[in-house]
Amino acid sequence: MPGRATRPLSSAPVAATEARKRVLIVGGGFAGLAAARELADVRGVEVVLFDRRNHHLFQPLLYQVAMAGLSPAEIAAPIRGLLRGAKNVEVRQEEAIGVDLEGRRLRTRTRQGEHEHAYDTLLLACGAGHAYFGHDEWEEHAPGLKTLAQATEIRRRVLSAYERAEIETDPARQRALLTFVVVGGGPTGVELAGALGEMSRFTLARDFRNIDPALARVILIEAGPRILPSFPEKLARRATRDLESLGVQVWTASPVTDVDASGVQVGRERIEAATTLWAAGVEAAPLGRLLGAETDRLGRVRVGPDLTLPGHPEVFVLGDQAHSLDAEGRPLPGLAPVAMQQGRFAARAIRRELRGAVERETFFYRDRGQMATIGRSRAICDTGRLAFGGFAAWAFWLLVHIYFLVGFKNRLFVVIQWAWAYLAYGRGARLIVSRDWRRGGELPD
Amino acid sequence: MPGRATRPLSSAPVAATEARKRVLIVGGGFAGLAAARELADVRGVEVVLFDRRNHHLFQPLLYQVAMAGLSPAEIAAPIRGLLRGAKNVEVRQEEAIGVDLEGRRLRTRTRQGEHEHAYDTLLLACGAGHAYFGHDEWEEHAPGLKTLAQATEIRRRVLSAYERAEIETDPARQRALLTFVVVGGGPTGVELAGALGEMSRFTLARDFRNIDPALARVILIEAGPRILPSFPEKLARRATRDLESLGVQVWTASPVTDVDASGVQVGRERIEAATTLWAAGVEAAPLGRLLGAETDRLGRVRVGPDLTLPGHPEVFVLGDQAHSLDAEGRPLPGLAPVAMQQGRFAARAIRRELRGAVERETFFYRDRGQMATIGRSRAICDTGRLAFGGFAAWAFWLLVHIYFLVGFKNRLFVVIQWAWAYLAYGRGARLIVSRDWRRGGELPD
Repeated sequence: MPGRATRPLSSAPVAATEARKRVLIVGGGFAGLAAARELADVRGVEVVLFDRRNHHLFQPLLYQVAMAGLSPAEIAAPIRGLLRGAKNVEVRQEEAIGVDLEGRRLRTRTRQGEHEHAYDTLLLACGAGHAYFGHDEWEEHAPGLKTLAQATEIRRRVLSAYERAEIETDPARQRALLTFVVVGGGPTGVELAGALGEMSRFTLARDFRNIDPALARVILIEAGPRILPSFPEKLARRATRDLESLGVQVWTASPVTDVDASGVQVGRERIEAATTLWAAGVEAAPLGRLLGAETDRLGRVRVGPDLTLPGHPEVFVLGDQAHSLDAEGRPLPGLAPVAMQQGRFAARAIRRELRGAVERETFFYRDRGQMATIGRSRAICDTGRLAFGGFAAWAFWLLVHIYFLVGFKNRLFVVIQWAWAYLAYGRGARLIVSRDWRRGGELPD
Repeated sequence: MPGRATRPLSSAPVAATEARKRVLIVGGGFAGLAAARELADVRGVEVVLFDRRNHHLFQPLLYQVAMAGLSPAEIAAPIRGLLRGAKNVEVRQEEAIGVDLEGRRLRTRTRQGEHEHAYDTLLLACGAGHAYFGHDEWEEHAPGLKTLAQATEIRRRVLSAYERAEIETDPARQRALLTFVVVGGGPTGVELAGALGEMSRFTLARDFRNIDPALARVILIEAGPRILPSFPEKLARRATRDLESLGVQVWTASPVTDVDASGVQVGRERIEAATTLWAAGVEAAPLGRLLGAETDRLGRVRVGPDLTLPGHPEVFVLGDQAHSLDAEGRPLPGLAPVAMQQGRFAARAIRRELRGAVERETFFYRDRGQMATIGRSRAICDTGRLAFGGFAAWAFWLLVHIYFLVGFKNRLFVVIQWAWAYLAYGRGARLIVSRDWRRGGELPD
């Protein structure tokens, strides 16, 4: 590993002979799960992983659930099951609400009440949610995409809009029902818009009698000068072209000034749209701010080179919740590979300490690049050295995701099943499931 | 076909040369879908199928979704997609709320308002919901199992009960969290109780550290003298034994007198249970009573031998919504094969009329038997001639369901995928998805 650096620990080193070290992990996302797996069956460590949900989510494919291409169970699995073999790891479905840094205790909440858990080492990896920049009232009209519940809500809204358009007789209202706005031109927004365009053009095209879904408008709105700011400009141009070929209109330099039930305001312009989706901003989980440590404007905790809280080498902050820097001093992006590498790094630091190490290593991110899909047969891919798009990028994207899903689900057949479901896009998952389970609760909406 | 009978039509026969006959079908269940398929691409007929949901549901496997063995998309498919090839069939997601029998108009409701649709022939196949016998307040504490939303709600409650038991320190409350009551000893109740028992014994057994799910109590409560009253007594005894081997306690002659948030009252006895499921009674969809026709105590419309409303040969009532009689004068049960045969019968009656037939045939049900599974490798099967149980019955059950799913989904690979998901029971679908999609809405519960 290049340029390995160390820094002295600010508290006394833990002796290798100490009985049992109690490690609490908050969050079962990529960082937390990677750490728990790295600590599985390590002697001298007992691990408790907390998550307020019962499942780990393969978030890079969440937009596929929202667009009815995949089922929730195809990209999520119970954390408990994933860690079944790790006898020293306990999983508890509790929500973390605070940390007593001096007393080394984590506070959690369940329906039964509040709880406290002592720790020797704490790993915070609570992730991020989406942010509305001070306009929380927009959430009702423009759901974001971070959880399975949100993905199924988006699916419900999108599919219901087509159903309502099919029976609508007023042309203006029909047009609004067939207008889909995606706010935010990052990878999530691009993937959502591309999948929406493709669903309208191909999957739904033959299903309706009174409307032509291919005439649906999909508008991708980005406040900045171009979409995909983290990618090379050439790839962003290519993605724009690919989106347009799927019927997606790309509006750049268009800050959204209002969102309501019937549409979106972009300065003086007004788009009448029954469905608006939010992919514009993220904000780290609130627990970070509660620590009293320094945070950036996204609420991410500024950590040291060893990913710990300044002055608290026993508290790691990982993944989307952390503001950590790369070798050039730029903050690392909120990507699954960053989180996984950080989770493993923290776990290895704990293992090194058990073996008597007194100095910490510095975390370095091995950047293998980034990618985004546009529809079902095109993508853009930027590995640092190579930047390419089109079908080749898509095939590469598929390979990489199959590779990671194999690691995640551990069964080849599940991946074959998944690949099938993916290629058969649009066959089975186009279900509108009501939010209300009670009798009579299922009105068309 | 044996014993074919006819009766004269009470209104003027429709001439075969008439331009186009407008057939409205209400309900995309087994009866409505079978009728729509039988009328697909028939010249001279235009069909509109109404359903307040967008999907057809393979209800015999719905308990598998509730028990996290299958995903919703594996047993449901959009009606629109299933009828994609039928150019003369339109699908509208609207809720039927009334019928003007004299004016021959169907009234429906959507979020946009109320609508009216004229018909020449009307097929009512709205199905049935569950009934609480005058105790609608029990529904909140004991959901039934008729829709995908209910199945996912049951799954959420069952899995959450184990999660809460894992972190509960009070022994009495832990015991209540690990007690599952199923009210109703018909096939649905037996299948739910068996799957619950099996999930505790096998699927979850290695997943928890603080509780032993195998010690969970599953109690099946039946008011009558025995479970499975529609099956031969010998098979019911066998099913009882099989249930008990999965740890299910079977209480017969035990009418439930109260259900609340913390348990169930059975006369003077009290069961403390965090989870109660309702499989005790059904009631036909309310539209039947609104017709002003004669209904039985379950709200089913009493139809003539040709499945039409007395005095209205242009109105068929089918499936669970109809009270129709077999050759011995007994009412037919609410089973998928009955509904499918009735749907096809009604469609064929319409086709015969188009060809100039003036007399109606009498519906006869071809009874191929009934079955129920107990856990994942046992079942009971009663074909009338043969009554058998155990693994042979289960293999037969699997074959029959694969056969019907092939017809339903029309793709062999989907069935292989399904069979895999079924045999890998408990791997991927154990997700607790929150009811609230908003940020912060996902508390552990």
